[in-house]
Amino acid sequence: VQKFFVTKLGEDWVFLILLGITMALVSWSMDYCSAKSLQAYKWIHAELRGNIALQYLVWVTYPMLLVLFASIFCHLVSPQAIGSGIPELKTIIRGVVLKEYLTLKAFIAKVIGLTAGLGSGMPVGKEGPFVHIASICAAVLSRFMSFFSGVYQSPYCYTDILTVGCAVGVGCCFGTPLGGVLFSIEVTSTYFAVRNYWRGYFAATFSAFIFRVLSVFNKDAVTITALFRTNFRMDFPFDLKELPAFAIIGISCGFLGAFFVYLNRQVILFMRRPNAMTRFLTRHRLIFPAAVTFVVASLTFPPGFGQFMAGEVCLSTCLCLLPSKVNFLFSNFMPRLLIFTYDSWVIVFVILILFFVMKFWMSAVSTTMPIPSGAFMPVFVLGAAFGRMVGEIMATLFPHGILFDGILYRIIPGGYAVIGAAAMTGAVTHTVSTAVICFELTGQISHILPMMVAVILANMVAQGLQPSLYDSIIQVKKLPYLPELGFGQYNIFVEDIMVKKVKFISSKSTCREVIHLLESTSLKTIPLVDSKGNIVSWFLFLIFFCINSKVISIYLLTLMHSLYWNER
Amino acid sequence: VQKFFVTKLGEDWVFLILLGITMALVSWSMDYCSAKSLQAYKWIHAELRGNIALQYLVWVTYPMLLVLFASIFCHLVSPQAIGSGIPELKTIIRGVVLKEYLTLKAFIAKVIGLTAGLGSGMPVGKEGPFVHIASICAAVLSRFMSFFSGVYQSPYCYTDILTVGCAVGVGCCFGTPLGGVLFSIEVTSTYFAVRNYWRGYFAATFSAFIFRVLSVFNKDAVTITALFRTNFRMDFPFDLKELPAFAIIGISCGFLGAFFVYLNRQVILFMRRPNAMTRFLTRHRLIFPAAVTFVVASLTFPPGFGQFMAGEVCLSTCLCLLPSKVNFLFSNFMPRLLIFTYDSWVIVFVILILFFVMKFWMSAVSTTMPIPSGAFMPVFVLGAAFGRMVGEIMATLFPHGILFDGILYRIIPGGYAVIGAAAMTGAVTHTVSTAVICFELTGQISHILPMMVAVILANMVAQGLQPSLYDSIIQVKKLPYLPELGFGQYNIFVEDIMVKKVKFISSKSTCREVIHLLESTSLKTIPLVDSKGNIVSWFLFLIFFCINSKVISIYLLTLMHSLYWNER
Repeated sequence: VQKFFVTKLGEDWVFLILLGITMALVSWSMDYCSAKSLQAYKWIHAELRGNIALQYLVWVTYPMLLVLFASIFCHLVSPQAIGSGIPELKTIIRGVVLKEYLTLKAFIAKVIGLTAGLGSGMPVGKEGPFVHIASICAAVLSRFMSFFSGVYQSPYCYTDILTVGCAVGVGCCFGTPLGGVLFSIEVTSTYFAVRNYWRGYFAATFSAFIFRVLSVFNKDAVTITALFRTNFRMDFPFDLKELPAFAIIGISCGFLGAFFVYLNRQVILFMRRPNAMTRFLTRHRLIFPAAVTFVVASLTFPPGFGQFMAGEVCLSTCLCLLPSKVNFLFSNFMPRLLIFTYDSWVIVFVILILFFVMKFWMSAVSTTMPIPSGAFMPVFVLGAAFGRMVGEIMATLFPHGILFDGILYRIIPGGYAVIGAAAMTGAVTHTVSTAVICFELTGQISHILPMMVAVILANMVAQGLQPSLYDSIIQVKKLPYLPELGFGQYNIFVEDIMVKKVKFISSKSTCREVIHLLESTSLKTIPLVDSKGNIVSWFLFLIFFCINSKVISIYLLTLMHSLYWNER
Repeated sequence: VQKFFVTKLGEDWVFLILLGITMALVSWSMDYCSAKSLQAYKWIHAELRGNIALQYLVWVTYPMLLVLFASIFCHLVSPQAIGSGIPELKTIIRGVVLKEYLTLKAFIAKVIGLTAGLGSGMPVGKEGPFVHIASICAAVLSRFMSFFSGVYQSPYCYTDILTVGCAVGVGCCFGTPLGGVLFSIEVTSTYFAVRNYWRGYFAATFSAFIFRVLSVFNKDAVTITALFRTNFRMDFPFDLKELPAFAIIGISCGFLGAFFVYLNRQVILFMRRPNAMTRFLTRHRLIFPAAVTFVVASLTFPPGFGQFMAGEVCLSTCLCLLPSKVNFLFSNFMPRLLIFTYDSWVIVFVILILFFVMKFWMSAVSTTMPIPSGAFMPVFVLGAAFGRMVGEIMATLFPHGILFDGILYRIIPGGYAVIGAAAMTGAVTHTVSTAVICFELTGQISHILPMMVAVILANMVAQGLQPSLYDSIIQVKKLPYLPELGFGQYNIFVEDIMVKKVKFISSKSTCREVIHLLESTSLKTIPLVDSKGNIVSWFLFLIFFCINSKVISIYLLTLMHSLYWNER
């Protein structure tokens, strides 16, 4: 009986349900804490109304403290928790072993660091870190589950578990199980076992469900609906004549997305270039995040420059408001600007452009800070702002709507915002499933075809210009990188990419030659051939190539050498 | 310049766009023709009103003629076109070469046969055949494209092309690009290259787009929206208290789906069992489809029994009406039945149950006819009817709706119908992505979480009871079948499944022993060992094992034998 019970507990669905519940709880409590922190931030700011100097001080120091705390905490507990985590997971799922990335320490550092980062109101996202958190959760849980079933010890199963972990991470981050599974697959895998679909859906749905039920119980929501619900007209969502505008959004978002990746990489590369300033920054590692937070917070200070770009509105609120109403962007100073101009739509554009440009570089810079931070959400907001801009232009060009079959249909700029968001995130991450995430987030699928068109166009442009944000980070961090083999690249021959001057060791090589070879190259494996100039043996020999152990390595080499030749 | 032009034409996206356009045109013209045929059918039926005998004659002969035509045409042109096509494609994508399945002949037979079958009003679907058609299209197009680029000749690329073909097939069948890609992956692949996502989305979106634009140009639709659009309330789609009902739908649909697969297989197996009747039927191959059509058409004859089950309404219309209003089911005889009973809801149940039960066996039997036919659409309608039934029960149990926060929310039985449809198709095909197809078909994503829950529960039940419909057909047709390696099966050892009494041939085997071995087993490969009882050589030798060529095969065996031993 006991054995039966133990076996039952070791079954797959128990693991999936446990993973779902854990991640839903983690996700919900993180959301709760960061929301409370933001509330406190706003509250203090509001309470100090009247005293501009004090207000500014609080507005700047509050996020600085949180960001510095996150940075120090991550640095002390687990430096692996810094950044998005998706690039590292992509590398791990491809089979490379990265140490310390899937430990409980990294989990704690990431959860607490991310909560602090989100609570600071800086433009950092949570999708990437969530993928990392859920994967750690899955890895730790599988180690726990291996008490009950031996399955969880096999290395083959490990990849399956991480894949499901990623799916749950995206899924419970926004409560989007479908898009979560698809996005995580597109982002992390190259080849995918279809049986994991089912498992991913199961765990992600369960997790998203618990996540949403928790908010119903907490009276945040009336019932389970989409997170950022929109209410566009369903009967005639868009006209065919609007399609060129959607295509323009797609193509522009492709360029903008590629530029975002480029900008982000340049910031990271600049920080890594060895000169006096960066050496100084590396030694005092808190100065960089503090400076970034200071600049961003100063610029968003609501009574200052922030009034022109809705500085007091945090990311997720932006996401709620961009498709529905943009008035929030200029509610504060609309009357003041109306003095200068006659048309209200000029203001709309000025503000939207300002909002877009400022948030653009802020997001690109903020995501390089040494705290757990993702770029998905900020890019999503940027895309929504850009789409809204195009939508407002369309609404200005056709103020009376589009005539079709004798009926005038007004243009919905909100729909453009949703399409822009999907296209921009698609371009930055090189994925198509952002469209699915968009449907699930907004709860409306009426714009499916134009959105798919825009996302695909954005992908085409962005893939031609830049690697995806995650691949870019993999390259910058010098993690092992496997380039995607495109469709048209089957006719590349081995001859085209092979090394033609091969370094090798023969049974007649002298020690001097071996040492020379070790010093002249950074190779970790050197082929061993049976006689000079006649490469017939494919035996590869791994040597320790660091200088200190060179003597030992040559010794080992010689030993293995003789063993090998004796065996023949 | 010419070479540049040729290279450009050979690029991937040209192929994808061509495939998309071709399939959209094929899909649209098939829809158009079969719709016209159904229209003519209805028109004749209506014109003959008053003359019941003649009406019945026409009602029965019209579909019989079309089905017989489809059956003869397929038999003459290409017998490979019969059936769904998904099981065969699953086998092909797994690497087995099935002859004549991807030829132009099969394409023509399938297109014309399917149009006739759909135009006959029988409960047969088009999703499966469409997958086959699109795959042929992709395969033929790739042969054409190989003039421009050598890529299309590589066997590795072949799988990629077929995968995209499947995605386009499902995508343009209903105009559901997202669900199309996902469904085709779940149904046909075991391992999936993630780069094909992008390509599938691209081609399927393009195809779906052209498909919908064609219907806008033809004034069938006002603009591009969902095919079977629903208009449920968005603000409060469902209450948490309704979840048990959704779970019940999921579990019941799991059982019903498994039963459908079982029933379908039993019909096929019965037809294959060797006895006098089936031998007779095999010789006169037109009698079976004629008989099935006769029975189904007789039962759905509107003035007869058909009035109790909306016999005059074709499949796609059912799909439109089940979520929105069920009155169509009993508009004809409502007054007549009201004499017997007082409550109108009793009638609703009686009719829905009648509709469900009759359509259930009709669909299971119709899909075994030797014409191109799929089971997706009929099962979808069945699921919708079942879901609607549960919805009506809920609406009867809570006639005033569900109280939440002081507001009474009425129950939407239509939402239950959509969930039932997704769960039932999910159970029959063992896929989760039917939920995505449902969202795209109805254009509403508000019920996402309960639908995912229902689909997953249905999958859990159905997967435990029966193989999927496609795997069932693969097994019945004795195509090479690879069972899915489940998650918990990593701890099966080779010892558990290996053959322990190995038959082998040694260098000292006599001809008599070899002949005896060939007669006693049906093995195609026999291991060759160096001395009796001591199996050390892993050389496997393929022999022709049919009895006629036995002498030759032994000769060959001996020849190879000596060659092999001489080489050592």
